[in-house]
Amino acid sequence: MRSLKKFSKAEYGERLQKVKKKMEKKGLDALFISDPANMNYLTGYDGWSFYVPQMVLVFLEDEEPYWFGRAQDANGARATAWLSPSQLLSYSDEYVHAKSKHPMEVLAAWVKEKKKNIKRVGVEMDAYYFSPRAFECLQTGCFWINFADAQHVVNEIRMIKSDQEILYMKKAGTIAERAMKAGVDVAKEGARVCDIAAAIAQAQISGTPDAGGDYPSIVPLIPAGSLTFAPHVTWTDERLKQGDPLIIELAGCFHRYHAPLARTVTVGKMGDRFLSLVRAVMEGIEAVLEQIKPGITCEEVEDTWQRVIKKHGFTKDSRIGYSIGLNYPPDWGEHTASLRPGDQTILQPNMAFHLMPGVWLDDIGVEISESFVVTENGCETLSQFPRLLSS
Amino acid sequence: MRSLKKFSKAEYGERLQKVKKKMEKKGLDALFISDPANMNYLTGYDGWSFYVPQMVLVFLEDEEPYWFGRAQDANGARATAWLSPSQLLSYSDEYVHAKSKHPMEVLAAWVKEKKKNIKRVGVEMDAYYFSPRAFECLQTGCFWINFADAQHVVNEIRMIKSDQEILYMKKAGTIAERAMKAGVDVAKEGARVCDIAAAIAQAQISGTPDAGGDYPSIVPLIPAGSLTFAPHVTWTDERLKQGDPLIIELAGCFHRYHAPLARTVTVGKMGDRFLSLVRAVMEGIEAVLEQIKPGITCEEVEDTWQRVIKKHGFTKDSRIGYSIGLNYPPDWGEHTASLRPGDQTILQPNMAFHLMPGVWLDDIGVEISESFVVTENGCETLSQFPRLLSS
Repeated sequence: MRSLKKFSKAEYGERLQKVKKKMEKKGLDALFISDPANMNYLTGYDGWSFYVPQMVLVFLEDEEPYWFGRAQDANGARATAWLSPSQLLSYSDEYVHAKSKHPMEVLAAWVKEKKKNIKRVGVEMDAYYFSPRAFECLQTGCFWINFADAQHVVNEIRMIKSDQEILYMKKAGTIAERAMKAGVDVAKEGARVCDIAAAIAQAQISGTPDAGGDYPSIVPLIPAGSLTFAPHVTWTDERLKQGDPLIIELAGCFHRYHAPLARTVTVGKMGDRFLSLVRAVMEGIEAVLEQIKPGITCEEVEDTWQRVIKKHGFTKDSRIGYSIGLNYPPDWGEHTASLRPGDQTILQPNMAFHLMPGVWLDDIGVEISESFVVTENGCETLSQFPRLLSS
Repeated sequence: MRSLKKFSKAEYGERLQKVKKKMEKKGLDALFISDPANMNYLTGYDGWSFYVPQMVLVFLEDEEPYWFGRAQDANGARATAWLSPSQLLSYSDEYVHAKSKHPMEVLAAWVKEKKKNIKRVGVEMDAYYFSPRAFECLQTGCFWINFADAQHVVNEIRMIKSDQEILYMKKAGTIAERAMKAGVDVAKEGARVCDIAAAIAQAQISGTPDAGGDYPSIVPLIPAGSLTFAPHVTWTDERLKQGDPLIIELAGCFHRYHAPLARTVTVGKMGDRFLSLVRAVMEGIEAVLEQIKPGITCEEVEDTWQRVIKKHGFTKDSRIGYSIGLNYPPDWGEHTASLRPGDQTILQPNMAFHLMPGVWLDDIGVEISESFVVTENGCETLSQFPRLLSS
């Protein structure tokens, strides 16, 4: 069987050391991680099991982290994580979606039995899949522990990728190109929007002959016709009419690493109002990509964009991009740096962003985006796909 | 444009009345809902926006609920929800994935300004996408409010479907048949597992000529070869070999209503050990489906299953099914009734379940499932697809 381990044990070890260093600085004895991307980042664990409570536990005093999850998912942990069998903890099925029991009670009981010496534990207070009830169970069962918010401890380390991670993101970028082409090819007069989404999903998952695709953290978003003003509506089974605009936002995904890509197309000729918005966005993207290099800040990047778009008479009050990489549904963003005013994160080599300067007016919207990785001297886009196109 | 409203305003009104009745019983002045399925159930709101905080607010004193979300998603709410424009509240983009600000601060400030009279509010303490930090923001900003857990208030109402909902689930069942056929057709010797998943996703989203498919809440799960023992690993790009077993678990989805379906197949001839497990599971399913009718309890259903499977010398210690319907990633289950010991939920007409008696041994696993709706006299499966098949 082809190995399901995506990185060397040494690379996981380096990641863990970085986390432990941050834990020491923050005075944390342990870190209880519930973000599936962070769980994967530290252990390799990969599975669609985040619909039930699960965690990775990092103790300063232990060499290896623990994986905690549903008993039937421990097999998946054996198959995908680098952890020793002794590090897999689980709860039985009676705790799954039960009203009077919660899996975090099992974890708290284990901590009470085995880790009574632990005093201060970091938890991800705003992570997906960590609920107020889960937190309450931990607090009640581990009454002597002082819990602290450690929301971005792992996410911040994830911002700077290894070369192996960048390689996976480039494969994802190639998959994104193929998926976009598959979608644009179907987007003709009379096609149902759902059939465009279907073609995209097929291409995303099939990937390339050498690299099968993974499921992106967000489904293809295809606001079409009168819906381009609503960026996060999914598809309908309406048929495209001559002149209909449509936005396609998608990602390629490889080993859970993402390369998002958005384009705006029209069935037939693009109307003048759309075209002028498209041209402004394209000029803004070019200006931004030209400027990207190590040392500038996220807010400087956004400022460049604003100057171009204002010249064209448009405004945009939402961020124009965000850090990307490894992730799980419902989001491919890393929730750390955003390209917006006030974000003084300094760009460094091997950081990666989705530059996504969508502009939504009252009735129409345009999205054209690029994912890029910061290089030693500038940046490189993860996909190569024409920015101006009509289907 | 084809209407994006999926149910009549009257049906939404009935749902809301049921919720308000339960709120009165529980002494709640308001209910703050963060589960996207519950938000959709009460307002029709549909969009891939649950990666940022959002809520539906039901106040006993107000006729219409409020939608609260990101400013750029208010357009999606206008397009999909039945609410009056005055009921759409939003926060600006500077609150999105920001370290020092949280969208729930905006909601708390609104409540403080407009709803100072509200004393007791129900929140879904274990819902996806409601974080401990979100809850803390609400508690801090609305310091005078007494928050109570209202985890299953809406979910329990969702258990009994309207005829319109059942109709959508049957369409989902037809889509599931097509998706399973698409997957089985590709699952030949030499095929990459990712290409099976790709064919399934294409069929799921394309749907039928009359009913375009929606994205299911879970991606196709296809443990293959030596991985059938791990139910929630997703696909690899490994190629199938002669004799490889594979499990395909998927759902059809229509207007966010699900009909899950699982089958176990083998490339070529099924080995004796697999076959005996398959036959036991099939006999268990037949016995259960024959017994289903209004009036029996969930645990009685499970007991029937156990008697059959024990006769064959197998055991299963996880639940054999759960209530299904409307949902969003990461789960298509409703988190209310489970077919397991101790669950005394009484089956009633228009309830729907995924009967999913997967059996995982130490090294192999078999999943064969049916989704069914309880009828006046028995039950009806949502899909018709052979249970024993080899690819």
